[in-house]
Amino acid sequence: MKVLVVGANGQIGQHIVKQLNNNDDHTVRAMVRKEEQAEELKKKGIDAVIANLEGHKRSIVKAAKGCDAVVFSAGSGGKTGAEKTLLVDLDGAVKTIEAAEEAGVDRFVMVSALQANNRENWNEKIRHYYVAKHYADRMLEASNLNYTIVRPGGLLNDAGTGNVHIAGNLDERGSVPREDVARTVVASLSEENTHKRAFDLVSGDTAIADALKNL
Amino acid sequence: MKVLVVGANGQIGQHIVKQLNNNDDHTVRAMVRKEEQAEELKKKGIDAVIANLEGHKRSIVKAAKGCDAVVFSAGSGGKTGAEKTLLVDLDGAVKTIEAAEEAGVDRFVMVSALQANNRENWNEKIRHYYVAKHYADRMLEASNLNYTIVRPGGLLNDAGTGNVHIAGNLDERGSVPREDVARTVVASLSEENTHKRAFDLVSGDTAIADALKNL
Repeated sequence: MKVLVVGANGQIGQHIVKQLNNNDDHTVRAMVRKEEQAEELKKKGIDAVIANLEGHKRSIVKAAKGCDAVVFSAGSGGKTGAEKTLLVDLDGAVKTIEAAEEAGVDRFVMVSALQANNRENWNEKIRHYYVAKHYADRMLEASNLNYTIVRPGGLLNDAGTGNVHIAGNLDERGSVPREDVARTVVASLSEENTHKRAFDLVSGDTAIADALKNL
Repeated sequence: MKVLVVGANGQIGQHIVKQLNNNDDHTVRAMVRKEEQAEELKKKGIDAVIANLEGHKRSIVKAAKGCDAVVFSAGSGGKTGAEKTLLVDLDGAVKTIEAAEEAGVDRFVMVSALQANNRENWNEKIRHYYVAKHYADRMLEASNLNYTIVRPGGLLNDAGTGNVHIAGNLDERGSVPREDVARTVVASLSEENTHKRAFDLVSGDTAIADALKNL
């Protein structure tokens, strides 16, 4: 598959780009916001396109053209406040969903967040973040795309273990290395059992491929 | 019809409550946030319930039970910032949509805003407001409810004229008295031609009933 990674310069996005680039089954196109980010990627031999999630949708459509899948792992980050979160994590995500539809890309994997689907469990201090993720996910579910929504727990910079716990709705809280989130996203791309499904993800005892098959 | 007005203490909401209360075809139940607001309404002989759009959905479900229609005219107002706008104008609206579904209320009229449907025309200074209204409207369209979405232009406190201009997508900008927005909402409730439709509304030359029939 040729995969457009939106948010390629983000902490999870960088792992996804690297893993796709090292994977014989896939080729990667990295979407980034800045010229210098694109130059860095191109130096490594990675196809990179520049588009701004706050800009017009047409640049995202152009980036998605010719791809087989889109991965959305962009986010405004924790320090930017509600306004930016709305414009990137919600409206930027939905522009990307619409762009995939318009470009004829059917497969879409969304990096969401644990509890984004459960209004009652939203952390009061960053409720705006959960509102944005919640409605981005719901708009994806309401789209015509063949989606997978991955909801990771607390994100760690630890090295990945390759072992996870995945379920439609986990009862427990938990955390997971960003590297394993990326591995799960990449493995989901070609795992039919994840089509049109959403699931929670934390560290666990099961190899990612098996966990996705048994979802 | 028995109509639940959500945001009954708002500037448009107050007009809607008054008009429904004076209309022999309808009875009104006003949903407000504060005890003293409910007391004021009850003194005037108006059925009032207390529920908070930022609280649990179940209190909205309870308010909607037994009603034939819900009107959503709530808003966090222009001074509260993006966080509150998200929680009231988007998440509060969608909670109300879900509450109507759960309470078995099929008819839903949404007070939206001119250009909420056109991302390109969002006022930069209050883009968060348009994002919230945009996605509330899209969630309503994706619901199973029999909806009408009214998108008024710039809101005025002038007395209403009863004459408007209504169209699926107006080319011009314009304004409209809040009293006429309320009249349009009330007239829409029982006008079948507005079922499952969204339209723009500004002041004009056509009587509201005729404008809705010819939409």
